[in-house]
Amino acid sequence: MTGRNWSVPETEVVQRIRDRLDAAGTDVLATVVDIEGNAYRRPGAKMLLDADGDGVGSITAGCLEDELVRVADEVRAAGEPRLVTYDLMEGEDEEVWGLGVGCNGVIEVLLEPLTETYRPAVEAFGDGRDVAVVTVLDGGSGSLERGDRAYYDPAGGTLSAPDGDAAAWPTDALAAPAAELAERGRADTVTVDGATLFVDGLSAPPELVVFGTGHDVGPVTELAAKNDFRVTVVGFRGAVDLAERFPAADRTLTTSPGSLTEVVDLDDNTYAVVMTHNFVDDRLTVEALLDAAVPYVGLMGPRERFDQMRDAFAEEGRTFADAELSTLYTPVGLDLGGGSPYQIAHSIVAEVLAVVNDRTPRHLKTREGPIHNRVDVDADAGVPPR
Amino acid sequence: MTGRNWSVPETEVVQRIRDRLDAAGTDVLATVVDIEGNAYRRPGAKMLLDADGDGVGSITAGCLEDELVRVADEVRAAGEPRLVTYDLMEGEDEEVWGLGVGCNGVIEVLLEPLTETYRPAVEAFGDGRDVAVVTVLDGGSGSLERGDRAYYDPAGGTLSAPDGDAAAWPTDALAAPAAELAERGRADTVTVDGATLFVDGLSAPPELVVFGTGHDVGPVTELAAKNDFRVTVVGFRGAVDLAERFPAADRTLTTSPGSLTEVVDLDDNTYAVVMTHNFVDDRLTVEALLDAAVPYVGLMGPRERFDQMRDAFAEEGRTFADAELSTLYTPVGLDLGGGSPYQIAHSIVAEVLAVVNDRTPRHLKTREGPIHNRVDVDADAGVPPR
Repeated sequence: MTGRNWSVPETEVVQRIRDRLDAAGTDVLATVVDIEGNAYRRPGAKMLLDADGDGVGSITAGCLEDELVRVADEVRAAGEPRLVTYDLMEGEDEEVWGLGVGCNGVIEVLLEPLTETYRPAVEAFGDGRDVAVVTVLDGGSGSLERGDRAYYDPAGGTLSAPDGDAAAWPTDALAAPAAELAERGRADTVTVDGATLFVDGLSAPPELVVFGTGHDVGPVTELAAKNDFRVTVVGFRGAVDLAERFPAADRTLTTSPGSLTEVVDLDDNTYAVVMTHNFVDDRLTVEALLDAAVPYVGLMGPRERFDQMRDAFAEEGRTFADAELSTLYTPVGLDLGGGSPYQIAHSIVAEVLAVVNDRTPRHLKTREGPIHNRVDVDADAGVPPR
Repeated sequence: MTGRNWSVPETEVVQRIRDRLDAAGTDVLATVVDIEGNAYRRPGAKMLLDADGDGVGSITAGCLEDELVRVADEVRAAGEPRLVTYDLMEGEDEEVWGLGVGCNGVIEVLLEPLTETYRPAVEAFGDGRDVAVVTVLDGGSGSLERGDRAYYDPAGGTLSAPDGDAAAWPTDALAAPAAELAERGRADTVTVDGATLFVDGLSAPPELVVFGTGHDVGPVTELAAKNDFRVTVVGFRGAVDLAERFPAADRTLTTSPGSLTEVVDLDDNTYAVVMTHNFVDDRLTVEALLDAAVPYVGLMGPRERFDQMRDAFAEEGRTFADAELSTLYTPVGLDLGGGSPYQIAHSIVAEVLAVVNDRTPRHLKTREGPIHNRVDVDADAGVPPR
């Protein structure tokens, strides 16, 4: 098998799960449920394995995938979930490192036949709603059995068990951790009444809304989608063929600057890049975004352009306090140099990622103290946390 | 036409020129030769237009492309190069900005039928050699005519004129500016003896060499290629199917850590990312790269991992001064957060871009003084400068 499909955006793994459910496939889902030591991926990392041994997603950088293909065949044949622990610790010599970051450490993986019990979660995720998938790893002395599944809906505060009796689940004890993990897009193990439950929070991806339809918009949508943003392209004045021109966008809309808020939800999960290359359209859009207090407004163009924009705001009696402008980033992007459309887009998406994850962009080598980076299991999510 | 092909990596525009030369197409090449005021692209930005009105590359964010398609038809019919100036300045009111960054300003564009005279340049570029394309904009009173073309080879210090008499060209006067522009990947206009010559430097793209074959390598190769790096993937110990697994790579090699320098040129244009996930392989590779004093060595893994590596170096009597380690970046990447393979790759490529362009990664909004960013014509090249 090629490794090509093993590295895909997290959102594509979830989409693939949904597609395979529709196809009534015989896939096996492998999920990292616990880790000790350095690991390339975190609990909640998923890999979907089909009967041909092809996989989508990865749970390490390649150390265990072949082994998992073998175990998945057994799980498919037995039709029962299985919990497998890989202890890659071999003492404090080079061989620990010899196994490589992402391999050393203890990795516990749940493998289970993909069933309809997973559908409510992927549908919620696809609809942009947070959800927590709760899976029994060990039922203890209770009535729950390994593989039993429930969902926690943070919006409604409800726990549902599509394949069983919701009353059998410790809803009260799960509510708080499930709500937090769902919002943060994290996963953790919770023990209640002797039962060990894996709570896998699927956080709705942050939404990147790009205002503009120039040739420079395409690369921004492509790179944002690769980075697990849900991407919307908004065009003005009857812009056409947007879905065809920007295939990486999850959706495209055409409206007028004055009607923005009627067609686009602007909330604390909205990250906006304004690049219409039209001063009036940019100004009206920036004003609407600042009024909505979205967490990020990136505006393309030199600083002097926003100074002129600010003067125009003042002329119509609209002034902005510095605090209001703290979410405005102009010129948009990180200072990476490079002037090609993709290089500009790369610097923009890098900036939005840093803001989404509340990081100060700098070389990781210069960061003081412990590096809470991708090898820190607690610090990172496959999709950017809100 | 869709805008999809209009935003492509610069290297793909040059490759397209080469492909169309081979196809003996009837394309018209449009090149920005001069700019006043803010502009989205810089002199040297190219757009290749075919007889169907489809284009590859863009010279603005979309303000002039449709007009250029029309003019290109006339140039194709006439078979003669034409110099067109678009004055989009309209005074100091909003309408200047209303035309948008990338539209306001004066943009001078040379349109010419694509001919074999362009082949030596694209072949040199494809071979990783710097070259300057010299094109006559105005021959003045001399024998040179608009569209006449010569090439300057900085390595050989020679000027050649495939379609005419090299002796007719002011080689001595061109040598210095052509050499500098070729190395920096910049373009400028030079006036010699009353003749106006456009000197378009095509700088060999920086080379990103990725050591490793894990699933996390694919996203790095994809994003680096989009950012105009020439990408090489190096695998160890009989790694197979590398070209198939990493289609975005320009080339793939399999060797052993001890034989690195025999198969890979390590020079001042080599930017290396070490991610074999094997401690011994990483250590031997890092040692070879530091010995070769390449400008960038990114090492995946936590800081403690390199501390352990440094101890291993010391045990064999190899110590590194801090100065030697200034080019070592570990943990690799910018601090953007995010833990998916693409998010990690995005932070790595962003870091390499900043190093290539000698930038301090930070929000452009926080940069002091004038923003030498993509809208500053002088500061940026479509391909990262060396």
